[in-house]
Amino acid sequence: MTTGKASSLHNPYFHKGEGEKDIWSLINEAAHDATLKRPDRPLYNLGQGFFSYNPPDFAIESVNNAISKPQFNQYAPAKGNPNLVQSLKAKYSKDFGYPIEDNQISITTGANEGMLSVFFGFLTPGDEVIVFEPFFDQYIPNIEMTGAKVKYVNLKYPSKFDSENVTGDDWEVDWDQLEGAITPKTKIIVINTPHNPIGKVFNEQELERIGKLCIANNLILLSDEVYENLYYDATFPRPATLKNLPELRDRVLTVGSAGKSFAATGWRIGWVIGASDLIKYVISAHTRICFSTPAPLQQAVSEAFTKSDERDYFALTRKAYLKKYELFTKVFQELGLPYTEPAGGYFLLVNLSKLKVPTDYQYPESFKNKTYDFKLAYWLIYEFGIVGIPPTEFLQPTSREGSGLERCIRFAVCKDDEFLQNAVERIRSLKDYV
Amino acid sequence: MTTGKASSLHNPYFHKGEGEKDIWSLINEAAHDATLKRPDRPLYNLGQGFFSYNPPDFAIESVNNAISKPQFNQYAPAKGNPNLVQSLKAKYSKDFGYPIEDNQISITTGANEGMLSVFFGFLTPGDEVIVFEPFFDQYIPNIEMTGAKVKYVNLKYPSKFDSENVTGDDWEVDWDQLEGAITPKTKIIVINTPHNPIGKVFNEQELERIGKLCIANNLILLSDEVYENLYYDATFPRPATLKNLPELRDRVLTVGSAGKSFAATGWRIGWVIGASDLIKYVISAHTRICFSTPAPLQQAVSEAFTKSDERDYFALTRKAYLKKYELFTKVFQELGLPYTEPAGGYFLLVNLSKLKVPTDYQYPESFKNKTYDFKLAYWLIYEFGIVGIPPTEFLQPTSREGSGLERCIRFAVCKDDEFLQNAVERIRSLKDYV
Repeated sequence: MTTGKASSLHNPYFHKGEGEKDIWSLINEAAHDATLKRPDRPLYNLGQGFFSYNPPDFAIESVNNAISKPQFNQYAPAKGNPNLVQSLKAKYSKDFGYPIEDNQISITTGANEGMLSVFFGFLTPGDEVIVFEPFFDQYIPNIEMTGAKVKYVNLKYPSKFDSENVTGDDWEVDWDQLEGAITPKTKIIVINTPHNPIGKVFNEQELERIGKLCIANNLILLSDEVYENLYYDATFPRPATLKNLPELRDRVLTVGSAGKSFAATGWRIGWVIGASDLIKYVISAHTRICFSTPAPLQQAVSEAFTKSDERDYFALTRKAYLKKYELFTKVFQELGLPYTEPAGGYFLLVNLSKLKVPTDYQYPESFKNKTYDFKLAYWLIYEFGIVGIPPTEFLQPTSREGSGLERCIRFAVCKDDEFLQNAVERIRSLKDYV
Repeated sequence: MTTGKASSLHNPYFHKGEGEKDIWSLINEAAHDATLKRPDRPLYNLGQGFFSYNPPDFAIESVNNAISKPQFNQYAPAKGNPNLVQSLKAKYSKDFGYPIEDNQISITTGANEGMLSVFFGFLTPGDEVIVFEPFFDQYIPNIEMTGAKVKYVNLKYPSKFDSENVTGDDWEVDWDQLEGAITPKTKIIVINTPHNPIGKVFNEQELERIGKLCIANNLILLSDEVYENLYYDATFPRPATLKNLPELRDRVLTVGSAGKSFAATGWRIGWVIGASDLIKYVISAHTRICFSTPAPLQQAVSEAFTKSDERDYFALTRKAYLKKYELFTKVFQELGLPYTEPAGGYFLLVNLSKLKVPTDYQYPESFKNKTYDFKLAYWLIYEFGIVGIPPTEFLQPTSREGSGLERCIRFAVCKDDEFLQNAVERIRSLKDYV
């Protein structure tokens, strides 16, 4: 009676790469192998960007307060909990230096769903979006699910990075490629600042040049600023606050994240800020994707913002992260392994081309046909119990070989200091291989 | 320099009906008018299906427990918190009467995002999905966002409903229409049982007949069972448990909701249960839509399921709802206003065709060109302070006039007993208009 298997009905988009293991499975399996080999040796996981410590007590307390009130256990309005809207209005009016109104704010179920809501609010099949490589992996399917196409533009690998430290500025936009990528179908340019995995903060000149292209070609500039509270220079230039280009504000959508701001990646509260005639489409799309965002956690984030002001929490966190980076980069200086000096975020991109991995080293089958950074990652995990992420994962497959990034590893420093200190001790043992 | 307004770039899908107010704005404005007119008269809001009371203490306590542990504040795995997966495995293995495995479960950010994940996991542009009218409004954009098309099939308005109570069984599937709607492009049939807004629970014969059509035509049966714990007959027939059609299990996806189960609609924890070779595509799509579902609330729901077992919570809730319905339906019996006897869920669909609304009654501009149920709703809100929902909102616009539903109002009974008792007193004053 049956005419076919129901699984044959699946959307082939989600079939891509089936049978091939994703990066997290590969890294977890390597970690598992390493633990079996040396059960006594603790593993230092500096891979995925989750925090090893709890959100601050005042944020936890805010959740307990929210959950005790009946109204915060029921649906929040689709556009967001009104208290959180007020908190964000206050925060961004201050941070941007000009007033932000209620209707310029859309609360979403994490920054990820915020970006998806932007893409669905604006894109139709055949439209084009420009994304810089390396990119945060979710951008690509989030754009493609709308039927739009991604055009890739390079952040150029600095040639001197194999031998010396570089800065975010050394990772230059390929301007010719960017100008050439804009077509009449282009609707959005996506940037990520502070940038994952590079740690680059786009400077004012770069933002202005990108912004002018957006104005001249009637494009939206979608600025993923989830690490906005973690910048390490005196100021944080952002597209929404460019002094020389205030008209850009009409076409910037800024994305933020409570998970990144309060060390609570599991809370899934994000937002999109921008001109009200753009935000209304973000809200419409969000309403259809998630209907509304978890109510008690929205209320908690609202309260947490108030309390963080009283405590100067974000400034203190920046200081704490400067200390973490100081601690963590020292060992690479000792080893003479270059890294990109982090201007923001919580990652460190280290160049390991000087590392002499034994040429006859045996990798498991699933790593054999991968780029060199995957092999480096395996070797570090299996032989040293140090987990980092191979950064070619942030490139389209055709860009990986020869990118320069295949000689690098990304480490996450959003871990407590003792953990980092122990990880550093372990990393020091790489000295025999430099 | 500017070539156009950025807002001109929006996706026209989210432009539909702009300028026209949505149902919630209309109802809220009517409520606002009513409060201005009679500030002393409390308003009884039986409109939207949110709970007027808090989740049970044991569920609140579960959130407090979860939030105090670091790991539940960080990303949960994309497929779901492992403890919640175990809780759901235990619950559904028991409820379905056969073992459910870990890989048959996908945790999603509310049932809504669960359904969206099913649609994206299976649909490509041009595919077709069959939806019964009346329908829960989110189904339509959720299907259309994938580029697929909705085919509508009637649950036929029972002609006797204008004069007497009917049952869910009296709302019959239009079988000819259903069989005619299936084409080679059809991939999914969506049902909602217990049904919102009718209160119908599909009976075994109906489910078998729909199930056989799914098997014969290689379709997926997507069963939205978010009110699964609120059924009022001895048993709750469900597609995944049909004795005469066990082979249907290979193609049923069952959707559930913690928000509905624990009176916590703001928590946004849902799930999809089904064959592992289907669930893997749901997980893939969900990973791209929301990445992962709020971690502390997942952990809390897991603990709440354990505690609900110890307390026989769902059986007690069913009893409490039987009492609520007894209390609430009594007044319509007194008034001689027919309703559909609820077999499940928390809504009551009442037929108000016997109500003599003054023919010269003046409606505000925004209600004038709406179907009669919107006018009925306005009159009830403004003159009596009773808020209900016009159910033609659950029909496509072309089906509204002449549907029969334009003589009905949907009331939500998920309110505390005192509130319902007071609402009943107020409704009693309609007697002068029958």
